[in-house]
Amino acid sequence: MILHSRILNHLRNRSLSLTSTVYIQHYVEPFRQYSFYKEQYVKRKSNSYVKYAVYIAITTSILGLCYYTFYKRVHALIEKPISCGEFRADLKTYNLEEVGKHYNKENGIWVTFKQGVYDITDFIEKHPGGSSKIMMAAGSSIEPFWSIFANHKTKEIYELLESMRIGNISEDDVISNVINEKDPYLKEPKRHKILKINGQKPFCAEPPPSLLIENFITPTELFYVRNHLPVPEIDLKSYNLELAVEEVTKKSFKFEDIKKYPKYTITSTVMCAGNRRSEMTQVKHLKGVSWSVGAVSNATWTGARLYDILKDLGINEDNYNHVQFEGYDLDPSGIPYGASVPISKAMDPRADIILAYEMNGQPIPRDHGFPIRVIVPGVVGARNVKWLAKIIVSKEESPSQWQQGDYKVFSPNTDWDTVDFSKAPAIQEMPVISAICKPEQSEIIKVIDGKINVKGYAWSGGGRKITRVDVTNDRGKTWHVADLIAEDNNAKEGRYWSWTLWSIDLPVKKKSKEIEIWAKAVDTSYNVQPESVENIWNLRGFLCNAYHRVKVKLEH
Amino acid sequence: MILHSRILNHLRNRSLSLTSTVYIQHYVEPFRQYSFYKEQYVKRKSNSYVKYAVYIAITTSILGLCYYTFYKRVHALIEKPISCGEFRADLKTYNLEEVGKHYNKENGIWVTFKQGVYDITDFIEKHPGGSSKIMMAAGSSIEPFWSIFANHKTKEIYELLESMRIGNISEDDVISNVINEKDPYLKEPKRHKILKINGQKPFCAEPPPSLLIENFITPTELFYVRNHLPVPEIDLKSYNLELAVEEVTKKSFKFEDIKKYPKYTITSTVMCAGNRRSEMTQVKHLKGVSWSVGAVSNATWTGARLYDILKDLGINEDNYNHVQFEGYDLDPSGIPYGASVPISKAMDPRADIILAYEMNGQPIPRDHGFPIRVIVPGVVGARNVKWLAKIIVSKEESPSQWQQGDYKVFSPNTDWDTVDFSKAPAIQEMPVISAICKPEQSEIIKVIDGKINVKGYAWSGGGRKITRVDVTNDRGKTWHVADLIAEDNNAKEGRYWSWTLWSIDLPVKKKSKEIEIWAKAVDTSYNVQPESVENIWNLRGFLCNAYHRVKVKLEH
Repeated sequence: MILHSRILNHLRNRSLSLTSTVYIQHYVEPFRQYSFYKEQYVKRKSNSYVKYAVYIAITTSILGLCYYTFYKRVHALIEKPISCGEFRADLKTYNLEEVGKHYNKENGIWVTFKQGVYDITDFIEKHPGGSSKIMMAAGSSIEPFWSIFANHKTKEIYELLESMRIGNISEDDVISNVINEKDPYLKEPKRHKILKINGQKPFCAEPPPSLLIENFITPTELFYVRNHLPVPEIDLKSYNLELAVEEVTKKSFKFEDIKKYPKYTITSTVMCAGNRRSEMTQVKHLKGVSWSVGAVSNATWTGARLYDILKDLGINEDNYNHVQFEGYDLDPSGIPYGASVPISKAMDPRADIILAYEMNGQPIPRDHGFPIRVIVPGVVGARNVKWLAKIIVSKEESPSQWQQGDYKVFSPNTDWDTVDFSKAPAIQEMPVISAICKPEQSEIIKVIDGKINVKGYAWSGGGRKITRVDVTNDRGKTWHVADLIAEDNNAKEGRYWSWTLWSIDLPVKKKSKEIEIWAKAVDTSYNVQPESVENIWNLRGFLCNAYHRVKVKLEH
Repeated sequence: MILHSRILNHLRNRSLSLTSTVYIQHYVEPFRQYSFYKEQYVKRKSNSYVKYAVYIAITTSILGLCYYTFYKRVHALIEKPISCGEFRADLKTYNLEEVGKHYNKENGIWVTFKQGVYDITDFIEKHPGGSSKIMMAAGSSIEPFWSIFANHKTKEIYELLESMRIGNISEDDVISNVINEKDPYLKEPKRHKILKINGQKPFCAEPPPSLLIENFITPTELFYVRNHLPVPEIDLKSYNLELAVEEVTKKSFKFEDIKKYPKYTITSTVMCAGNRRSEMTQVKHLKGVSWSVGAVSNATWTGARLYDILKDLGINEDNYNHVQFEGYDLDPSGIPYGASVPISKAMDPRADIILAYEMNGQPIPRDHGFPIRVIVPGVVGARNVKWLAKIIVSKEESPSQWQQGDYKVFSPNTDWDTVDFSKAPAIQEMPVISAICKPEQSEIIKVIDGKINVKGYAWSGGGRKITRVDVTNDRGKTWHVADLIAEDNNAKEGRYWSWTLWSIDLPVKKKSKEIEIWAKAVDTSYNVQPESVENIWNLRGFLCNAYHRVKVKLEH
């Protein structure tokens, strides 16, 4: 240090004007100093005192420069994920009362996370889960919501949150915030280990593709699971299903009351709107559960027809527009999962909507909606509300975030800055889709008699039957028609709720070592799948029904 | 000739072995001769007699070669179309009784045309109009059928027929064949001159694209016309509509009886399955009316509901599968135009099937089915039977050729050798489609403020509403969402029978001189159009609903 200050004094003595900017001080100065001292060194070669002083000065300057340059990045990389929500001495400390005043756009929207206070006003509209969902935490702690939607607990999201940091709360306030908070996922049911888990909290899992198409009726334990909240614990004895018209409760059913209605069984496929999202995210990154081809399964469902129940109530469908469903699964603010379907569907006996209490001949297991799940065949899984708590006949669509601010599809160029969820209809009936389940991507296949076996499923919403599946391995130059090996032969015209399984012994060229297989299905309305994911890409990654493409290696 | 034979003798004397094949004689020989004579000529330069002989020989040989080579083609081009059906002395003459015995596969299937007798046994299955249709002429004259289906009167088809020639009939038999035959199209109604005629007999015509989308409701005179047979002449006073269950007539309605039923008005688009076929034929040639984008129109239809009529009759839909319709338009063998729809649709009040006696508030004109046309909204035009004569409730689909042997779609690689019409379902509900009507292909457009206006229609079958139309001019890199400028605001949920008109001021790049505009529509089931015509190509050229693409030139 003495040496260093001496050199600096020396420099001052030489009347070198030190510019005031940090840039000059750190970047230019060392080199100017270096030149000067080199000159000095050459001049006074014999003076080793000065020589060492020069080296030390240069080294010190460079180290300072490096530290200054990389400090922020290193800090961000190493410290930020850890420090998200930690006390920051450079920021003001607020009390919870002050935070609580910031719950709307006028005052600004604040939330807390651990000891951090965040102004998320500008982020609200960009929230991938929808603005109404994030607004539930306005003016309070975001933590109980993140316990439910645990997919938020990533480095990326911690960093994003910390970038909106404006202050602290005291340690005492943190304690009062976390009081009574416990993991709402402690009492989840046990699941079959073969399911591929795409999300733990809420639980989302799919069966492996090759197993999926082994059975026309998916074994219950292998049926894909898409929960939106923790699985509720329901005691059958105290189970209650409420039936309301607008705000007014008209009836209350015990479980046994539902069983008194005529018993119907339908076979229906249920598919998640996000099925095959993993392909869409490859085109352009998007958030959401990264499903492969297995967010779909087929089961028999037994229960009472919604039509019979609503008819009993004497509902005139011309006076209402929607039938809403609420589940017993609640978010941290006590709002249930919800969805609705058009009343024209709810009151159409041909729509076969079932309040199902049996799945594949057995009581519905907890993961699939025990004790009652509404099955709206031909309609996206999200409207097949599990753990059914309430049915509301209404002029309005369900106010649920999952109905109005999610499960909608937009044009490929609509992004989070331009999206307006009120402009697109909620997904109801689903479009025609197919998938190749066997072989899987990158599999090595033995060619037998110039052919390989390819298998998959195809399905269309709205009761439209699959009439044809075309398969190619030369990019559409030659299309081969697959055999439809399993379909619902008992289904009535226009009420084909089940998927169709298909198989083909696909001829391959003699010397080809790698092929790409494409499949496309056609339904009774002669709707076909679109060719490429690019042109149907949408910011929520829904309804990825482009040709399914699988590359495999061949062994001759 | 004397010279020529002398030269040949000379050659023989030189022991040149003439090979026996024609090829050598005509192609190689002249050149060999030429070399030889050139040599001779050089040797005996003074002998002008030989010189001229050489030239003459060469010229003669070349002329002979040309004649031989082109004879067949020239003959085919000039003579065949004229001679189709003319007496051929080289063939046997049969009497009509002998011809009449050949009406099935066992005996072979023969038909006559003018004086010609033709064995069409092997052609039956390849007949683009279906085997059952051509079988009606088996063992007799094809001529009255070709008077109805006048599209057969082309050089191509005359040649095809003549290639199956096996004999003659006498001139007297020809006279007895044509007796009573007159043009069945003499009493067709007058049509608006602006309609673009795609076929005269039967009459098929469409309005120009830019005019088509000027009105949400197509003016009746501009409504596209797709007739399958001559327009029948019907006297309202004697009009009779029969209602049968299987073979048994249950009721007979006068026109006034139908008017006594409650009066319903719906707005419904009607579209021909062949709409936009002209694009499909560019991919690979196919037969059929070459429609542009105008085989579609939208009108209001007023009449009695089929549901009310069938309900009156006490039909239990579980006992039947189909409701068939027959028109008053007859083919030469007396078989009416026919089609059917599933009974689940016929007996569904939500399906809005109307026995319409008014079109756009006026009695339906002759070209559109006077006095009654059944309107099956959301379903292909071919099932919207005109000049309704009979309704049959049945276990069976309509036996009509147009139901069972036509209006079906197959995989792109299915051809006339492999097609099996029983394997595909009859087209009923139609898939989502759109078209750009303004600008039209190759139009020159003035760019205003960096934009051009693009307009068109979109529609989907089955009551599915159009929810979005995306337009691009950079091959899908940027999709712009069009404004939906006209749609049926009174339609009930799931019963959007009308098309949607759309418009967009499409931004174009500053310096681009030519662009290709693409349009694709999305319906409430989120079905989208496929990208390319190639992958939906089918041998009858139906349901061409790929992205519509229009190239235009820009003026800045």
